[in-house]
Amino acid sequence: MDQIPLNSGFRYEKVREHITGMIEEGLLKPGDKLPSLRSMSDQMGLSITTIMKAYTDLEFDGFVEAKPQSGFYVIDDIAKSTPVPRISNPDSNPTRVDKFNLIHSFLNAMVKPNLIPLGGALPSHLNLPEKELNRISKRVAIENPDNLLYENVMGSDELRHQIAYHMSSFGPVLSKEELIITNGATEAMYATLKALTNPGDKVIVESPCYFGYLQVLETLGVFAIEVRTHPETGLDLDDLQCALKHSRVRALIVQPNFNNPLGSQMPEESRPEVVRLCRETGIAIIEDDILGDIHYNEKRPSILLEHDRFRDTVVYISSFTKTVAPGMRIGWVIPGKFANEILRQKASLSMSTNSVSQHVLQEYLASGKYSRHLRGIRSNYKNQTATYSCHIAKHFPGGTRISKPRGGFVVWVELPREIDSFSLYHRALKEGITIAPGLLFSAQERYNNCIRINCSNPWNEKIENAIIKLGEMAGNCEINIR
Amino acid sequence: MDQIPLNSGFRYEKVREHITGMIEEGLLKPGDKLPSLRSMSDQMGLSITTIMKAYTDLEFDGFVEAKPQSGFYVIDDIAKSTPVPRISNPDSNPTRVDKFNLIHSFLNAMVKPNLIPLGGALPSHLNLPEKELNRISKRVAIENPDNLLYENVMGSDELRHQIAYHMSSFGPVLSKEELIITNGATEAMYATLKALTNPGDKVIVESPCYFGYLQVLETLGVFAIEVRTHPETGLDLDDLQCALKHSRVRALIVQPNFNNPLGSQMPEESRPEVVRLCRETGIAIIEDDILGDIHYNEKRPSILLEHDRFRDTVVYISSFTKTVAPGMRIGWVIPGKFANEILRQKASLSMSTNSVSQHVLQEYLASGKYSRHLRGIRSNYKNQTATYSCHIAKHFPGGTRISKPRGGFVVWVELPREIDSFSLYHRALKEGITIAPGLLFSAQERYNNCIRINCSNPWNEKIENAIIKLGEMAGNCEINIR
Repeated sequence: MDQIPLNSGFRYEKVREHITGMIEEGLLKPGDKLPSLRSMSDQMGLSITTIMKAYTDLEFDGFVEAKPQSGFYVIDDIAKSTPVPRISNPDSNPTRVDKFNLIHSFLNAMVKPNLIPLGGALPSHLNLPEKELNRISKRVAIENPDNLLYENVMGSDELRHQIAYHMSSFGPVLSKEELIITNGATEAMYATLKALTNPGDKVIVESPCYFGYLQVLETLGVFAIEVRTHPETGLDLDDLQCALKHSRVRALIVQPNFNNPLGSQMPEESRPEVVRLCRETGIAIIEDDILGDIHYNEKRPSILLEHDRFRDTVVYISSFTKTVAPGMRIGWVIPGKFANEILRQKASLSMSTNSVSQHVLQEYLASGKYSRHLRGIRSNYKNQTATYSCHIAKHFPGGTRISKPRGGFVVWVELPREIDSFSLYHRALKEGITIAPGLLFSAQERYNNCIRINCSNPWNEKIENAIIKLGEMAGNCEINIR
Repeated sequence: MDQIPLNSGFRYEKVREHITGMIEEGLLKPGDKLPSLRSMSDQMGLSITTIMKAYTDLEFDGFVEAKPQSGFYVIDDIAKSTPVPRISNPDSNPTRVDKFNLIHSFLNAMVKPNLIPLGGALPSHLNLPEKELNRISKRVAIENPDNLLYENVMGSDELRHQIAYHMSSFGPVLSKEELIITNGATEAMYATLKALTNPGDKVIVESPCYFGYLQVLETLGVFAIEVRTHPETGLDLDDLQCALKHSRVRALIVQPNFNNPLGSQMPEESRPEVVRLCRETGIAIIEDDILGDIHYNEKRPSILLEHDRFRDTVVYISSFTKTVAPGMRIGWVIPGKFANEILRQKASLSMSTNSVSQHVLQEYLASGKYSRHLRGIRSNYKNQTATYSCHIAKHFPGGTRISKPRGGFVVWVELPREIDSFSLYHRALKEGITIAPGLLFSAQERYNNCIRINCSNPWNEKIENAIIKLGEMAGNCEINIR
């Protein structure tokens, strides 16, 4: 129901939603025949051409298949019957991080032109509000004489106000004085970890987790303690409790809303408990909510910050990288009781943040178009991950498991144990296809039979061919050890 | 000769240059009468009105004075006869830096609206290429679809190419692969110091030096060793040699081209020697050349990087903050042999740098208009610092000393020893005037009888009144200790 109403496409979207709704509700089961074109045309009051277009698009996206001289049938939903990856089982000992070379070669590989972009977790430019931002940029370039000058260290007053306003729709009511604007979530994470840790300290992370955290921990000489993380419900609380018992643990980094790469969502009832556990042991929580605005369910899940009643445990981090524009590098941190120390880091790191991008973003948020934009991309990304998953399930070797993300736009694919995904990554690169090898997502030598697939780009034939090719190649990347 | 030819103002500028040239060459001495309006009009082939306008502007700027019924006379050039500040004499012991609160309250004070901006060393927006950048911004907003997406970690290829091209006009020929784009010079400095030092290490700095360095050293737990620095010739080489003998010294941070706050310029013959001394002791040089493009003499001074024949000693840092746009936060570093380690820091700190600003800057540099812009602002800033100095000399207490900068746009004012400039800073702030108190520019408790005055804003009556007011207040800020 949230698909962007794209002019003429609006009516055919209604058909699409009608059919996918019936599939989701079980009214149409795998193998069932879809209503005929004529009956659907009559029912919806739309032309047969429109119905035909909707049906063929559903076929293209892998939901249905056409049988000659017969009609359209719901395909066996192999993605649905594909199991999710196993819960992770990392070594519980603190690990010194040494992943920079791997991360660096991965990031370098991503920038070559004309690659099939299944590697980086970057939004597709088709899912960014390009026109709106360009329109505002042109105006801001002329009207705002302060664009060329420094913003203050905390960031633009108006942008912080707009962010606080946006957050009040799902989280606590904040004053703009409680926010610091940063060069993306990366700088927010760096400043926070630098403020909270010393070399040799330990930080708890989900396993698998976003490799960017590992990069910062490595730079700061901080050990990672990885805890078991369920592909659907996230952080394992028993394992967290064990991890909290280590000495010199300074923080837990967690993505309750859609762990990257798993897409997991922490159950609401666990959230106050996680805050309580950390608070009792005096460990700070660094909540990365960068994907929180891209929830697939109607209602946005809560944030840990909201459960931090005493406002002494959670540091909240987010950015517009996944939803509006990665290239703007605008993130923010709500530092809570660490405000002084984190602001001090921010000042040392870069003095202030790009003025123009702050001014463009504040106008964009003030225009009120952000929530409409979010409704659109949530629906798009939800459909796209379903389509990608369906095709991965179809073309990848037997025994492959696929995550069922609750938000964001990546899926985590667990290949059979004997498949070496690092070798697959290199072979794919030679074919012009990027994927993110599992080794990136742990400080340990884990997940080498896993890959992360970026589903942010609208499905097309090139991507379909890439998935087919990847499936073929995966079969040839077996290693001899079990 | 480099004043921007401002349409109709061009002719009267010629008169101005003619007169100031005569004063500089000593053809017109303090107390001498200027050529009469009529004779000058005949000589230059310009109207008497034009000559009159030039003479009254020279009066406004403090170079000449009108005597009723008589004519214009060269005023006693009190700025010229005012001595420069004494060479500094810091404690030679390593000092733990603890200036964050002071720096933070200073930066916070700067952002209030409607202050007379003599505090921050920020370019005036009148001396930035606003129109040109706005024109490019509008075009780039429409034409470059990559604006919203990440640039790679090193920065935009084209921008790095353009910077290398610009640098080849005064320094070594570099490939774009040797540059990393950063969030201003601040991030470049942070990344470099983080790569080169561990907590407890020592770094040599000029005394006084830019407080931004101190902020980074404090954050990283690195000690500062301050060396004597001459207001005209910069770093004292004997003192440098002593400082290099300390254990755990990892780097020298130096601004050979116009120390901020002194405006000093290291003599050309000292430059290879500084590189040799550091190279022999295995100490890296972090060369901050952020003001290098704003040289007052015709020829740009060299950079230390050029004298680093083995390319194993100098890390070069610069940015467009002082010349094009502080708000863009675009700087760069030439990391030399520390490339891997510094790139790794940059990736951890912010992953990549704002795309739009990189694209706008690369177009601006490619347009070839940067060198013409520089010619204009060099001349403006040279004239402005002269005008400010003249008025400071006139209105400040006897015994005041003023630096004679060779570039940039600030002057360093040494007040009589008994004047407490920190108290002056607070009193001035209450009157809506910002200045930078001397305490900011040293890790030690030094320079509390000094202030830095920003001269980037074109001279006007408001500023004149502020200088007069400051002079009055300075007289009332005596402390009782000698």
